[in-house]
Amino acid sequence: MSNTALALMACAGVCIGSHAWAQPPTDCKPSALNIPGAPYPCVYPDHRVMFRVAASDAQKVRVRIGSGFDMTKGPDGLWYATTTPQVIGFHYYTLAIDGAVVADPSTRTFFGSGYDNSAIEVPDPDGDYYAMKDVPRGQVRQRWYQSKVTGSWRRAYIYTPPDYDTNTKAKYPVLYLLHGWGENEHGWHVQGHVDVIMDNLIAEKKAKPMIIVMDNLNAVKPGESAALYFARGSLTQAVAEPPPVPGAAPAGRAAGPGRGGRGSLASSVFTEMMLTDLIPMVEQTFRVAPGRENRAMAGLSMGGAQTFGTALAHLDKFAHLGGFSGSSGGRGGFDPKTSNGGVFADAAAFNKKVKVLFLGIGSAEGPGTKTFSEQLTQAGIKNIYYESPGTAHEWLTWRRCFKEFAPRLFR
Amino acid sequence: MSNTALALMACAGVCIGSHAWAQPPTDCKPSALNIPGAPYPCVYPDHRVMFRVAASDAQKVRVRIGSGFDMTKGPDGLWYATTTPQVIGFHYYTLAIDGAVVADPSTRTFFGSGYDNSAIEVPDPDGDYYAMKDVPRGQVRQRWYQSKVTGSWRRAYIYTPPDYDTNTKAKYPVLYLLHGWGENEHGWHVQGHVDVIMDNLIAEKKAKPMIIVMDNLNAVKPGESAALYFARGSLTQAVAEPPPVPGAAPAGRAAGPGRGGRGSLASSVFTEMMLTDLIPMVEQTFRVAPGRENRAMAGLSMGGAQTFGTALAHLDKFAHLGGFSGSSGGRGGFDPKTSNGGVFADAAAFNKKVKVLFLGIGSAEGPGTKTFSEQLTQAGIKNIYYESPGTAHEWLTWRRCFKEFAPRLFR
Repeated sequence: MSNTALALMACAGVCIGSHAWAQPPTDCKPSALNIPGAPYPCVYPDHRVMFRVAASDAQKVRVRIGSGFDMTKGPDGLWYATTTPQVIGFHYYTLAIDGAVVADPSTRTFFGSGYDNSAIEVPDPDGDYYAMKDVPRGQVRQRWYQSKVTGSWRRAYIYTPPDYDTNTKAKYPVLYLLHGWGENEHGWHVQGHVDVIMDNLIAEKKAKPMIIVMDNLNAVKPGESAALYFARGSLTQAVAEPPPVPGAAPAGRAAGPGRGGRGSLASSVFTEMMLTDLIPMVEQTFRVAPGRENRAMAGLSMGGAQTFGTALAHLDKFAHLGGFSGSSGGRGGFDPKTSNGGVFADAAAFNKKVKVLFLGIGSAEGPGTKTFSEQLTQAGIKNIYYESPGTAHEWLTWRRCFKEFAPRLFR
Repeated sequence: MSNTALALMACAGVCIGSHAWAQPPTDCKPSALNIPGAPYPCVYPDHRVMFRVAASDAQKVRVRIGSGFDMTKGPDGLWYATTTPQVIGFHYYTLAIDGAVVADPSTRTFFGSGYDNSAIEVPDPDGDYYAMKDVPRGQVRQRWYQSKVTGSWRRAYIYTPPDYDTNTKAKYPVLYLLHGWGENEHGWHVQGHVDVIMDNLIAEKKAKPMIIVMDNLNAVKPGESAALYFARGSLTQAVAEPPPVPGAAPAGRAAGPGRGGRGSLASSVFTEMMLTDLIPMVEQTFRVAPGRENRAMAGLSMGGAQTFGTALAHLDKFAHLGGFSGSSGGRGGFDPKTSNGGVFADAAAFNKKVKVLFLGIGSAEGPGTKTFSEQLTQAGIKNIYYESPGTAHEWLTWRRCFKEFAPRLFR
């Protein structure tokens, strides 16, 4: 039986959603994040994206990406939309079908904004650093652990470098790496490809082999509602930000006015959980090099705010810090003598203690992070400022930030 | 600020889909598979399930679980449905919103039927064996590898037992464990909780510590379409089965008439890939005990058919086999002299070679597997038949099958 006949028979039995086998225009290539075999959404060479949705009886269908695009019903009864050219990289999106906001069944789903969104990937011509190559591969390991502080089981994903299981006497430095608001412990290896980036950097000898711990930045005390996970970040949204783009974390959160204080969006419960439960579990389970100089912490967006909140208050435990589109400073209110509990007051002492202080941001995200970097520099605090060209508060910014950050660690 | 005030502010900023904070009846408990903080879907003590969906402008909303239930719009403008009592365990489901079949944004998503479905979990009073307990924990490791046979990067998840990283001289037997039609390499540890079950069995000394390799049973040659992934299984659906329940693999597939031949639904590409690429990668990467007696293969549904197709044809490589709601035999056409390439013709030789031949099924799935077990017994072939009481072609059947199967391995 021919493949075509097989596909037709299959379609008669199970085609639902937008899984039909009709093909898009030849220059519109299926997004890498589609479910196997799905031709839509597809991306044109000029980065317009074409969507297709089956919703036979709907009155109004809209694809919620960027400013949003109304879909129109084609002669085949399916709904279509082609967007304006999109920025390269990973974009969350959802559909609005007669008022229901849902994931598109044509793509894999990705946890963002507190639920499973759809996403597309607009190929980056400079994305070679997160491409799968024939290099030695590390592992990403799921490890459940019990937290005394939250009174719950928690899950961490731990990247181990390619030689971890063969170089059995070696001990490795550790980076604790956090996702953003509304995301979870999957973010960095699923949306961020951090394991692939590290394998490539290690193969090129650009970064030291290290362990990377990806935990969930949400932590509540026993009895508190998990709904607080999302309240914490969205508090700022409701107060200070324009209506959020679906799936995107609030852009200015960590850099907004009046938030120069120590980690005002950082959770003290997370910090306590990390010091009491997570770090001891990691150091009992993996071959970890001892001491603060072998320990780094970084995060994106709210995870950056958490990093600054946790690590600046515990510099006896961390020597390397990174904030990607999120830290603890911003446009106003920074005073080196008092901000962040006065940790920047003695610049010479700080510079001796902190080996890497990295601030990254997308060029489309506004001036807050650059301003913070300049304020730090003016106060004599050594720091690295990196700006991702042309990108916003999205995963391509954070992949690039990570690629710039990781090679500087543990030198 | 009170938690309530926080939640209200959050809701003003970001409430979408069915994420509003209103609470269900107190005896209706949120499903364990809901996104953090979501009160719906919830499960009543009598196993009725209550769903809620936001779809302000929809004309018709239906929840596609079991035979399906129409939803009705409440005075709050949200859609509600309460089902009849459901069977205990894990059930995939989707919503139909004005003809669009989509996941419910209130639950995490689970890959089944070739895309990301919603799911609910109706608690099993005997589900202690897959509950998180304070026992030593293994890991589930993501490992990418290059396949020469498929010309692609593939991903396997590998469970390593709790003592793997400390008992560093030990070598472990390996079980290769496959998901079903339309699922993927996540199925066994996400839907199946296989890592939790193993940790518990090992802690109780009921099963030997082993490595479990969970790969994707779909494999196509370079240039072939991934759409064939779903055509292969659904071929049978279109030909022989009633319209499929959303998310469930076709119940009778591996036990249908005329399929007593060797692995007619098994893919020779997968077998070739497994022998050429997967097993060598596993044995180079992990501390694996050598030889066929330390190698087992099992799978559910189409993965059971694949197991019988692969392993019965290569008994020089496998000494333990399991088919959970799927194997290679069934209601008719079984001839011990010729079926499965004549591998059952010499019962004494087969029994000497195959240490475990396990056939499991849900009691609601029909008589095919029991018949096959009886046919084998009649032909002198030792086998173990296990029937999961009250369950159908769903994950609770397969969790139970695994719990019965694993303790018998590598004895």
